[in-house]
Amino acid sequence: MNLVVGLIGGLGLLALIMALFFRQRVLAVKIEDGAANPEELLRLKEISSAIAEGAMAFLSREYRVLSIFMALFAVVIAATVQHGLETAVAFLIGAGTSVAAGYIGMRIATVGNVRTASAARESLQKSFRVAFESGAVMGFGLTGLAVIGLILVWLGIDSLVPGLTAEQQMEILSGFGLGGSAVALFGRVGGGIYTKAADVGADLVGKIEAGIPEDDPRNPAVIADNVGDNVGDIAGMGADLFGSVAESTCAALVIGAVGYQATGGTDLNILLFPMLVNGIGIVASILALPFVRATQEDKVEGALKNALIISTLFMLVALYPITMWAFGNNTFMVGTVTVAAMGVYIALAVGLIAGLAIGLVTEFYTSHRYKPVREVADASKTGAATTIIYGLALGYNSAVIPMLLIAISVVVGYTFAGMYGIALTAIGMLGTIAVGLTIDAYGPTSDNAGGIAEMAQMGKDIRTRTDALDAAGNTTAAIGKGFAIGSAALTSLALTSAFLTRAQTGGNTLSLEITNANVLAGLLVGGALPFAFSAMTMKSVGKAAFAMIEEVRRQFRTIPGLMEGTAKPDYAKCVDISTAASIREMIAPGLLVILTPLLVGFLFGVQMLAGVLIGSLVVGVMLAISMANSGGAWDNAKKYIETGVHGGKGSDSHKAAVVGDTVGDPFKDTSGPALNILIKLMAIISLVFAGAFAANGGILLKMFK
Amino acid sequence: MNLVVGLIGGLGLLALIMALFFRQRVLAVKIEDGAANPEELLRLKEISSAIAEGAMAFLSREYRVLSIFMALFAVVIAATVQHGLETAVAFLIGAGTSVAAGYIGMRIATVGNVRTASAARESLQKSFRVAFESGAVMGFGLTGLAVIGLILVWLGIDSLVPGLTAEQQMEILSGFGLGGSAVALFGRVGGGIYTKAADVGADLVGKIEAGIPEDDPRNPAVIADNVGDNVGDIAGMGADLFGSVAESTCAALVIGAVGYQATGGTDLNILLFPMLVNGIGIVASILALPFVRATQEDKVEGALKNALIISTLFMLVALYPITMWAFGNNTFMVGTVTVAAMGVYIALAVGLIAGLAIGLVTEFYTSHRYKPVREVADASKTGAATTIIYGLALGYNSAVIPMLLIAISVVVGYTFAGMYGIALTAIGMLGTIAVGLTIDAYGPTSDNAGGIAEMAQMGKDIRTRTDALDAAGNTTAAIGKGFAIGSAALTSLALTSAFLTRAQTGGNTLSLEITNANVLAGLLVGGALPFAFSAMTMKSVGKAAFAMIEEVRRQFRTIPGLMEGTAKPDYAKCVDISTAASIREMIAPGLLVILTPLLVGFLFGVQMLAGVLIGSLVVGVMLAISMANSGGAWDNAKKYIETGVHGGKGSDSHKAAVVGDTVGDPFKDTSGPALNILIKLMAIISLVFAGAFAANGGILLKMFK
Repeated sequence: MNLVVGLIGGLGLLALIMALFFRQRVLAVKIEDGAANPEELLRLKEISSAIAEGAMAFLSREYRVLSIFMALFAVVIAATVQHGLETAVAFLIGAGTSVAAGYIGMRIATVGNVRTASAARESLQKSFRVAFESGAVMGFGLTGLAVIGLILVWLGIDSLVPGLTAEQQMEILSGFGLGGSAVALFGRVGGGIYTKAADVGADLVGKIEAGIPEDDPRNPAVIADNVGDNVGDIAGMGADLFGSVAESTCAALVIGAVGYQATGGTDLNILLFPMLVNGIGIVASILALPFVRATQEDKVEGALKNALIISTLFMLVALYPITMWAFGNNTFMVGTVTVAAMGVYIALAVGLIAGLAIGLVTEFYTSHRYKPVREVADASKTGAATTIIYGLALGYNSAVIPMLLIAISVVVGYTFAGMYGIALTAIGMLGTIAVGLTIDAYGPTSDNAGGIAEMAQMGKDIRTRTDALDAAGNTTAAIGKGFAIGSAALTSLALTSAFLTRAQTGGNTLSLEITNANVLAGLLVGGALPFAFSAMTMKSVGKAAFAMIEEVRRQFRTIPGLMEGTAKPDYAKCVDISTAASIREMIAPGLLVILTPLLVGFLFGVQMLAGVLIGSLVVGVMLAISMANSGGAWDNAKKYIETGVHGGKGSDSHKAAVVGDTVGDPFKDTSGPALNILIKLMAIISLVFAGAFAANGGILLKMFK
Repeated sequence: MNLVVGLIGGLGLLALIMALFFRQRVLAVKIEDGAANPEELLRLKEISSAIAEGAMAFLSREYRVLSIFMALFAVVIAATVQHGLETAVAFLIGAGTSVAAGYIGMRIATVGNVRTASAARESLQKSFRVAFESGAVMGFGLTGLAVIGLILVWLGIDSLVPGLTAEQQMEILSGFGLGGSAVALFGRVGGGIYTKAADVGADLVGKIEAGIPEDDPRNPAVIADNVGDNVGDIAGMGADLFGSVAESTCAALVIGAVGYQATGGTDLNILLFPMLVNGIGIVASILALPFVRATQEDKVEGALKNALIISTLFMLVALYPITMWAFGNNTFMVGTVTVAAMGVYIALAVGLIAGLAIGLVTEFYTSHRYKPVREVADASKTGAATTIIYGLALGYNSAVIPMLLIAISVVVGYTFAGMYGIALTAIGMLGTIAVGLTIDAYGPTSDNAGGIAEMAQMGKDIRTRTDALDAAGNTTAAIGKGFAIGSAALTSLALTSAFLTRAQTGGNTLSLEITNANVLAGLLVGGALPFAFSAMTMKSVGKAAFAMIEEVRRQFRTIPGLMEGTAKPDYAKCVDISTAASIREMIAPGLLVILTPLLVGFLFGVQMLAGVLIGSLVVGVMLAISMANSGGAWDNAKKYIETGVHGGKGSDSHKAAVVGDTVGDPFKDTSGPALNILIKLMAIISLVFAGAFAANGGILLKMFK
């Protein structure tokens, strides 16, 4: 076996071993040690298994719906795409791997949450460690699966389908990315609707109408709410970032293969270099782990942020020798740009640094330690309306610098390595994804731990500790969302370039001038898509939340003794409502995203589709970042007021802030994050079908000619 | 004199005569006839002159600031642009005409408002007629000024600056459009901040805290609120649409001149055709007037809508023979497309129809007779948060069809007449602008009439009549906003094409592929601008409103007998606060819009600037339409609840709806409409400086090469 192939496979395996290692450590924590008495132990076990069952029930229903869809889509791919059968197989493997990744994340999160709660009795430090290591199982597990999946599928193509050019190999491999991303679409949208329907329903009736605290066991929607954290923020987010890694790598592989081949390359080091970068990221992430330590409550956020900064620094250093080794003095041409080792390193470094910078900007706009969130909190003194106006303005503002950073990445990446460079900036930004995912998954796990502590009545000191862990998770979640959308933007650009490269092979060049009427119309139509999609998902949350509100009200009304705590609510009914609503509501936005590129490509052709992809990217990125950050800021403005300022909990300011927080829920956890997938998925669908569009696309326009 | 020149001038003059005629009719209405007694007459006169004084005070302070800025900008133009001196003169004439247009609108609105109120004592019909004819003074006055201004400046250039090509003439003429648009920027932004600071301040303290009705004379901010309607919705909106007419015509003239010249044209019918279309629109608008009649309260909205539909039909018919006459069998080339009479007519017709369709879609999304607004009203039953979520989703959705209509206009316009066709769709959409403006100006005039009736204590029956007029005005205002943004989008596209045509003359062709890194970075940066701009203007409204809230609270607290009605509030202080705040806050967003194209053009060059223009267009249009319609829908959802549904006035649903309405205020009257100008102004600045950018632009990028 070739050295680089072995290296990539080995690094992927290393990630999986790390994931197993952390899983063992989490499972070694005994729930019994943290329970004050047998009754509390019983409650802990009961509650956590109710959450785990709800989460698994959702996943299996979602995946059942998905499997039908995936089978149909595989048939379409097999029938219309060149090397269709091979691509369809790669697609199904990608989808399967993504499903497996979702399961892994969900499994560990639903055992990690209760262990985080029980460990909180011993110390904050231990509790933090359990939540962090639960997250690490997902971080390393998913990254490992992505790397191993990519290299194995490539090996399979290379050995089972002889006679292909490198370019054709990579096109088939793109099916793997498409599979991962298609699962992510439904995971993000379905999970996002689930979690917010439950959250809004639980809050509006429980907190506001009945006046009981968050996570109170008397609230019928409380289990659904905690299940939601897992299905939305663990499974959905995991599938999203798994997709980003797979897709950005595929984009770089396709673009790289074209240039590599044209210059007669035979060196696998160069061809497979993008996968190698993923592998190196695993090492950098592992090396950063020893630096993560939180001994005091106010050090948690810093510890998590340090993990990100340190892994970025390690990556920056490690990439240099690896890039030099892989490329040596070799060069190849991408378009009119000569790609060489130094240019490749610069493109990767720019992406890596831009990612960290986007994360830090996001933190500035969403943490209540800084001015923007405090302004929103101030605005709550004059009521809900000004809270909303200031929160929206904050979101709009917060998207500006990230957008400029993305623009700079594009220009620098392109200048030093052409279109390949743009793809590399995306890979660079995702370089430390194992740590990024770890931190992301840490958040909902500690959130759940807090919920479990409350429901199991573990006592106020335990809750204080889990709250500290959770608060840090809120800010890092916002950072994670910044990363996710930034990398989605670059990934999508890279995929779009790969698509256009592919659609124009064979001298079939097209004008893609922005003044061309088809391109222009595409840009306008593409710009409308994120708005249509967000409107759909926001209204879906609203509809599902209404159903939840009615059910919770009904239970409070009809179950005697519920408010007094002598009777138990029907948790399962609320879990059912969220599950059914989210599965039903994810279909329409899902089809919008999948059918748009297919319809535009086949009916109006490649020019308009190119416009649609870029138009939806520009609008989608702005909308996604602003929604995520408005939501994060409202959440933290409310938390800031709860520390006692502006009258504290229960004051009019607090009530205004709660309105902001509720508006922010679908913004930051449903519509915003789902836009990542919109822009990536449309681009990778275009890439996979590029040949078919080039050959048979634009039927409608041809009719009028 | 040439026939077509005389025809254009004559039609412009006809519009001015119509404006004078309607002015006489409005002034002939005696305030005395409507006053029940001398005391009421005194109050009517006192209040209306307070509003008129406040409005004029704002205008003169605004124009004083503007004149410094305009002088500076004229110097920059004279120094950097080819034929700089001539262009600077055209710029100053355009700015001056726009200022005059603002004054005319404001003068008539501030005498029409009190006459509308007093005529309401006689009958609804008469009151409607006064408000409508006040609007018509502005509608015909502005259109006439635009047409006469354009033809006179062209005649001036043609006779005073000999030896110019037609293309050079039209480039100088673009200075006129730039002048009009630059004034509009500050008018829209300043006026928008003024009106909403006063409105939000008056509502939050008066309606919510003190519990007194809207327009209650005890509210210290009530005069400022009524002044705001005039400075925002009359002067600001008028300057905006005056700019659109001038700019779209300039864009068509520039693009047309290039083709006209290349094919050796000498026929002024063809060269000046875009101005002729404006002139024909005046005739179509006049012919529609006899059909406008409102005898009953529920017929008002229909009467206004009919005026629009009928004038569109007349225009559609009239344009055909005129186009055939003007073009005959002549053809010229624009890019690769041959432009002939039929293609020209189709492009104009598509724009005209698309404009009407956008208007009707807007009505569907903002009138409470249809489902979308009723859904928002339903959502208010579960509180402010769901009201906001549904209203935002409605806005997002409402922008989708207009965007598709714009995309269709672009494709059809381009197919039949190339880039010239895109400019013609914009002119077509603005074809019935005299009627459109009439209806737009009708709204704030009847809104003011209601305020005056309330403040002068004219009695409930009078107020009911003015309320009916006002309610119809709300919906037609939304329709007008749809038109304004739709035409702004097409105008901006036409200007961008004209800019790119100009920047590439002399074999200096540039790649404008959307995959070019500079273009792509431009698209991303451009996409960020509308968000940055909206954030600025929203926060400006918030800041100014806070100052107003504090002042109103202070007066309620410190003026004894104010609540009892025995002492008068200090209206002037509130007018001052709004004036000062709006003048101060308009500077920063104004500079953002003006400096961006200059900096990008000179530092990064034409490619990136092209991207910036298109990127900001795509994002700006979506954001502008969604903001305007969310705002309109919240306003009407509140009004719908006030008819008695969901508990009616004072219920919890109503309170939630008021929050929505307050959030919507800066959306629909400040940030949303100001985005029109953002996209148009950046494009026309680029056009005027095109030659300079082509020759000396991109300094920073050249340094790195």
